[in-house]
Amino acid sequence: MITHAQVEDLGPDDLALMGVPLDLHSSFLQGPAFAPTRIREALHSGAANLTAEDGTDLGMTDRVKDTGDVDVFEQRGPEPIAAIEAGAGSRLDTGARLLSLGGDHSVSFPLIKAHADRHDGLNVLHIDAHPDLYDQQDIGPLGHGCPFARVMETGQVKRLMQVGIRTMNAHQREQAERFGVEVVDMHGWRADLTPEFDGPVYLSLDLDGLDPAFAPGVSHHEPGGLSTREVIDLIARFKGQLVGADIVELNPHRDPYGITAMVAAKFVKEIGARFLR
Amino acid sequence: MITHAQVEDLGPDDLALMGVPLDLHSSFLQGPAFAPTRIREALHSGAANLTAEDGTDLGMTDRVKDTGDVDVFEQRGPEPIAAIEAGAGSRLDTGARLLSLGGDHSVSFPLIKAHADRHDGLNVLHIDAHPDLYDQQDIGPLGHGCPFARVMETGQVKRLMQVGIRTMNAHQREQAERFGVEVVDMHGWRADLTPEFDGPVYLSLDLDGLDPAFAPGVSHHEPGGLSTREVIDLIARFKGQLVGADIVELNPHRDPYGITAMVAAKFVKEIGARFLR
Amino acid sequence: MITHAQVEDLGPDDLALMGVPLDLHSSFLQGPAFAPTRIREALHSGAANLTAEDGTDLGMTDRVKDTGDVDVFEQRGPEPIAAIEAGAGSRLDTGARLLSLGGDHSVSFPLIKAHADRHDGLNVLHIDAHPDLYDQQDIGPLGHGCPFARVMETGQVKRLMQVGIRTMNAHQREQAERFGVEVVDMHGWRADLTPEFDGPVYLSLDLDGLDPAFAPGVSHHEPGGLSTREVIDLIARFKGQLVGADIVELNPHRDPYGITAMVAAKFVKEIGARFLR
Amino acid sequence: MITHAQVEDLGPDDLALMGVPLDLHSSFLQGPAFAPTRIREALHSGAANLTAEDGTDLGMTDRVKDTGDVDVFEQRGPEPIAAIEAGAGSRLDTGARLLSLGGDHSVSFPLIKAHADRHDGLNVLHIDAHPDLYDQQDIGPLGHGCPFARVMETGQVKRLMQVGIRTMNAHQREQAERFGVEVVDMHGWRADLTPEFDGPVYLSLDLDGLDPAFAPGVSHHEPGGLSTREVIDLIARFKGQLVGADIVELNPHRDPYGITAMVAAKFVKEIGARFLR
Amino acid sequence: MITHAQVEDLGPDDLALMGVPLDLHSSFLQGPAFAPTRIREALHSGAANLTAEDGTDLGMTDRVKDTGDVDVFEQRGPEPIAAIEAGAGSRLDTGARLLSLGGDHSVSFPLIKAHADRHDGLNVLHIDAHPDLYDQQDIGPLGHGCPFARVMETGQVKRLMQVGIRTMNAHQREQAERFGVEVVDMHGWRADLTPEFDGPVYLSLDLDGLDPAFAPGVSHHEPGGLSTREVIDLIARFKGQLVGADIVELNPHRDPYGITAMVAAKFVKEIGARFLR
Amino acid sequence: MITHAQVEDLGPDDLALMGVPLDLHSSFLQGPAFAPTRIREALHSGAANLTAEDGTDLGMTDRVKDTGDVDVFEQRGPEPIAAIEAGAGSRLDTGARLLSLGGDHSVSFPLIKAHADRHDGLNVLHIDAHPDLYDQQDIGPLGHGCPFARVMETGQVKRLMQVGIRTMNAHQREQAERFGVEVVDMHGWRADLTPEFDGPVYLSLDLDGLDPAFAPGVSHHEPGGLSTREVIDLIARFKGQLVGADIVELNPHRDPYGITAMVAAKFVKEIGARFLR
Repeated sequence: MITHAQVEDLGPDDLALMGVPLDLHSSFLQGPAFAPTRIREALHSGAANLTAEDGTDLGMTDRVKDTGDVDVFEQRGPEPIAAIEAGAGSRLDTGARLLSLGGDHSVSFPLIKAHADRHDGLNVLHIDAHPDLYDQQDIGPLGHGCPFARVMETGQVKRLMQVGIRTMNAHQREQAERFGVEVVDMHGWRADLTPEFDGPVYLSLDLDGLDPAFAPGVSHHEPGGLSTREVIDLIARFKGQLVGADIVELNPHRDPYGITAMVAAKFVKEIGARFLR
Repeated sequence: MITHAQVEDLGPDDLALMGVPLDLHSSFLQGPAFAPTRIREALHSGAANLTAEDGTDLGMTDRVKDTGDVDVFEQRGPEPIAAIEAGAGSRLDTGARLLSLGGDHSVSFPLIKAHADRHDGLNVLHIDAHPDLYDQQDIGPLGHGCPFARVMETGQVKRLMQVGIRTMNAHQREQAERFGVEVVDMHGWRADLTPEFDGPVYLSLDLDGLDPAFAPGVSHHEPGGLSTREVIDLIARFKGQLVGADIVELNPHRDPYGITAMVAAKFVKEIGARFLR
Repeated sequence: MITHAQVEDLGPDDLALMGVPLDLHSSFLQGPAFAPTRIREALHSGAANLTAEDGTDLGMTDRVKDTGDVDVFEQRGPEPIAAIEAGAGSRLDTGARLLSLGGDHSVSFPLIKAHADRHDGLNVLHIDAHPDLYDQQDIGPLGHGCPFARVMETGQVKRLMQVGIRTMNAHQREQAERFGVEVVDMHGWRADLTPEFDGPVYLSLDLDGLDPAFAPGVSHHEPGGLSTREVIDLIARFKGQLVGADIVELNPHRDPYGITAMVAAKFVKEIGARFLR
Repeated sequence: MITHAQVEDLGPDDLALMGVPLDLHSSFLQGPAFAPTRIREALHSGAANLTAEDGTDLGMTDRVKDTGDVDVFEQRGPEPIAAIEAGAGSRLDTGARLLSLGGDHSVSFPLIKAHADRHDGLNVLHIDAHPDLYDQQDIGPLGHGCPFARVMETGQVKRLMQVGIRTMNAHQREQAERFGVEVVDMHGWRADLTPEFDGPVYLSLDLDGLDPAFAPGVSHHEPGGLSTREVIDLIARFKGQLVGADIVELNPHRDPYGITAMVAAKFVKEIGARFLR
Repeated sequence: MITHAQVEDLGPDDLALMGVPLDLHSSFLQGPAFAPTRIREALHSGAANLTAEDGTDLGMTDRVKDTGDVDVFEQRGPEPIAAIEAGAGSRLDTGARLLSLGGDHSVSFPLIKAHADRHDGLNVLHIDAHPDLYDQQDIGPLGHGCPFARVMETGQVKRLMQVGIRTMNAHQREQAERFGVEVVDMHGWRADLTPEFDGPVYLSLDLDGLDPAFAPGVSHHEPGGLSTREVIDLIARFKGQLVGADIVELNPHRDPYGITAMVAAKFVKEIGARFLR
Repeated sequence: MITHAQVEDLGPDDLALMGVPLDLHSSFLQGPAFAPTRIREALHSGAANLTAEDGTDLGMTDRVKDTGDVDVFEQRGPEPIAAIEAGAGSRLDTGARLLSLGGDHSVSFPLIKAHADRHDGLNVLHIDAHPDLYDQQDIGPLGHGCPFARVMETGQVKRLMQVGIRTMNAHQREQAERFGVEVVDMHGWRADLTPEFDGPVYLSLDLDGLDPAFAPGVSHHEPGGLSTREVIDLIARFKGQLVGADIVELNPHRDPYGITAMVAAKFVKEIGARFLR
């Protein structure tokens, strides 16, 4: 069992799960706001167990705690970014590690900001079909195509490595160069790629980095992506100290049989096992 | 054409197909009782032909005979295991080989028992996401998570090799050690793995050994599995004398377009071709 | 933006898109007549951009022009083959290259004929689960299982290489030998295969060459096929001068979420980029 | 249980079920050839029982016998009409009543012909969205839009009443007038309509007579139709002696959850109960 | 907003929502254990508001409180009936009214028992396609086809009226007579039926009482049922004092788009409004 | 055939179709921007004809002309309302009648404005589950829940009658009273309601006015609505001169089989027939 817990019950050895039910910044299709509920449902569905592939059983430790969803509209303002950053921050300040679930990719900006404020020299490993480096979108500078531009503008991220990219256009290429992003696009991807980071690493996992065959339940189907196996292996293999992670862009409207929610739940187990090691 | 036949019409050169419409022992979701009908529908659908990839045409020989479904509730008792074992036994006693279709994985216990009684030193090649070695489930010792514990307890199986495993927990690990099971989990899987068996081999193929991308029509979606191509190649490549096989856990409730039934039908052709060689 | 254009507005540097809304020759399931609309919808959907993986942006050049659908029933006769050949011919006669979208595979016969009349020594690279070399089908000699028999009978094609094949039966094997077809079946497929052609190449891409996991939206689900990534890489890698292409057998009736239409749109971008290079 | 039986085992008190797996004459979408299998699956699914609403239990009598599918391609000719008429005739000649399952609507022509040859003054009650009175279709005079033109041309049908019609165009209106068809279109439909026939009645039930809300699993979705309840009540209420019936146009490709197959199975029970009364 | 509350926070004016995640007693298809989550998701989805048709806004009162799910496996025994009865009882003992959500229909036995113990002369209004009066099922006397036999055997229910019935077989007819059940089957149903009860009324609403067109997301599709509108109107119209209710048999495995969850949520609002009046 | 035409080719006797591909103002789920394409696909699909139920054949007159989609982002500003009003206005200024297809309901504000500017004393018949009278939404005053507040604020609409309403909350009730809206909610709906208008009438048809059983392909599933038949009959029956109409809120993301697009196409025919009378 993964137990429920209040933020104040977290401690330094814990892994906190936190839902982020927000899809306000999606440019094409809403839905990721429903993701946290569905990922939890998959985790506890009875169709699977809580054991990761290395044998770590998330259900046999009391270190994994579900702290519920952040109340993204807490402050009733037009912009929930601050609420997400605060929600992450309060959990991190207990010393716990944080694995955030759900939302569109815009949520990674406040999530990474909260981590970067607490970890000098933060590295980011970003798995995605899209570089998400737009300076602007029609829906504004916080659109889900922009978060890594915002992240890099903070100047607090040492290295950003992007894996799975297959939609790089001229503007985003410029942005990548400007920010010094290391892009491993699908053309350059090899299954034995082993990224090595010096210091703390934040993992941002956009499910559309996978091929739609493996993760159909996303808003943006971009064929030609990674397999679930490749991502599982990458999670286990990269070098560096994992200090925070998110799994974003699950869209339940496109996941009628819950297969993609099961993929997300699988990653919760694999990322969780790496945290607990 | 694959012709229909009575058990008494079978002969030593024949390959008998037999449906096993049972899902009584499923712990999460019924459905596999409908699988035999759907696999036959896919085999004869007109969207494909009956030729395996090595050129063997199951429709151009009179050696492949469909003997219909075993009547699992024949004896009106609470437990259909005996009926399945008897159904398999009567077919095997004609000298024919048996390829069983459908049912949840609990059916493999009586099927393998029927083979082990007739083939000394039987080896089992087991493709699955799950080791199915539970000593007990809530639904009892014949649950679909238990059959390989039951099989190994007979003492009649020389070697059990499991391929595709990715949900091994502590209890099942103990069971695997206790029974001397050879587990090739997904972390250790390589596409050129070539199992070699000395003597007769029974192949038990749980469709959830495949990744849900390839076989979504199963009760237990366990991401990170084998591709259809990898399984086709494994069927053709392992060393040993194939003497019996089953294809289990197709769940038509999760197969609205019949894609997974087509995968099962593909395996009927590939396994059939290996029998007929 | 990909602009709309009349045939008379095409010029020698252009890449013309042309829809072929025909599924009259399908033996199992209609549907591909709806494909051109859905591929265009996917191309312009807002869920993706128009940039190919090599950075070529089909939306930033004025060389890509959508010339609409050929009117396959223009002549009200029973057989629209001539209309397709004429539609292709008129576009080719402007000097433009042609990328045809939609239809069942029967449309490739008139399309390739139109190219062979204008390119001596034409090579054909054919990606498919099926060799489509039948001499006859119940629905006649123009059935979607026959086009490459018809193509080879013209004597105008120098080499025909087929990739992805996994349903070769005895009759088609004879036909392949008779016509000297080079068949790379899935058993012989390697991900680094690099076909080399001397002279002009026509690419005929049947989406069922992909595994149904990657392209479920086709009439004939034939498990064990290529991945989207493998096809993308093959498109970029083969040697020779690409002079024409088609993408066929998308069946919207089996593509409820439009995933396979997105795969087709992806190939439009990748093939388009190769044309524009 | 509905038992299986050979034609020669039928007797005068029996109700024979017969599958008609044909969709060769569909103008828009194949599929109804798969219907007989799916209707039987629904009848025996375990999700329902075999009791009609008047309490008649089809499973508690030995008068209902499933005689399997007619072999529509028995004679290997291009046209299976004769095989269907012969299959119906041989069953009727035992004195049994016949309820035919599946196929597109073209099968009703030979089915009704077989009944008209044996029942003078046959009346036909036809439930459908479409009058199916075309003189010709692109696919010929036996297309599934033509059967009632063919039926009326025999001169053997005394009255044809059509219920549920909502697509009458000028040509079909002329045909209706020419043949003296009584058309109750949806505008004129009232839920208490009680057709009265003098003498034998054949019921031809096209599932697209229902609104797509109730029967989505058909090739031609024509909104604005009957409810399942209205059809159940009509079956029970019309006056006359029911001597034969068919249930056509179920398309399993559009019935992923089997709901429409359950509707067809419901009608099997309700029509069966009327036969057995 | 419907607020969350502990049982101890309930008071006499409150309406308590309680989830019952159990599908252990389903004879055909599991799934209803997932229903409570999905009904809550639909209630709060943002695609609708919380206002019933009479203008009562469940979100504008503090009397509606969600008390979470009963822990059906609390006592780790084989049978969760006692846990459900206890969960209902503890809530009722606060004086609050109870609206239970989810589970298969077997949960209504302990739920009604808990109400009957606290309300002398309890009446039950039961909406369903099935009478659920079986004395036994293969899965035992607590199967989801048996609850109303168990309820009537308590002797504590004054009247049981069943509406929507359309699968009554001989055994269940005997049971209905034995227990004096008032059955309004679909044949006898009229849209203006106004049941009148003297004293307290418990409403048990099985979603398969609706036609599958309106509630496809159930395990047992029984065509020919009630419309959503008819049920809404019946909820508002019957005479008597509503003291408890349940909404059961939602099966999310058959509700890919959440339409049936929205139907259940609609009934939560309409039943809730009647409680709050 | 419905022919394509430029705006300048329209004349006073014509009925102009115009697509409005906009879903920028949807509060819950995007999608209606894809509707125009899908409605046209359904109209021309070959699964139906172009004849309305009164015999008017939209394909046999040259008065029905498809003028394509309005370019909603023509002016590249943030707000496309003006472009829609201008697109409608230019068509109306030719004397033609206008039937607009697709978009979320926000498009009805500029559409009705364009009509009100040209027809004094305009009446509006509004079919919908929701009154859409919000003064504001989180997404602003042009959200798809606000258009009829905006319409009434113009002072140019004489009467607004709403039919099918079943989500009226306190704020919207106040708005309805303030603007003198005549609300026929589902509780008050009778199938023979015959609205009578004095002077010109604009019909705004939100597909979610129908029950989700009949129109599942909408963003907001609100159970308990109208049947397709009831809406068809209402279109034919109301008194007054129809001068303009729209069909909105079709969401192709929720219409995998195109059933709701067929419902929309049906209404195009029925509304079209009323225009052409």
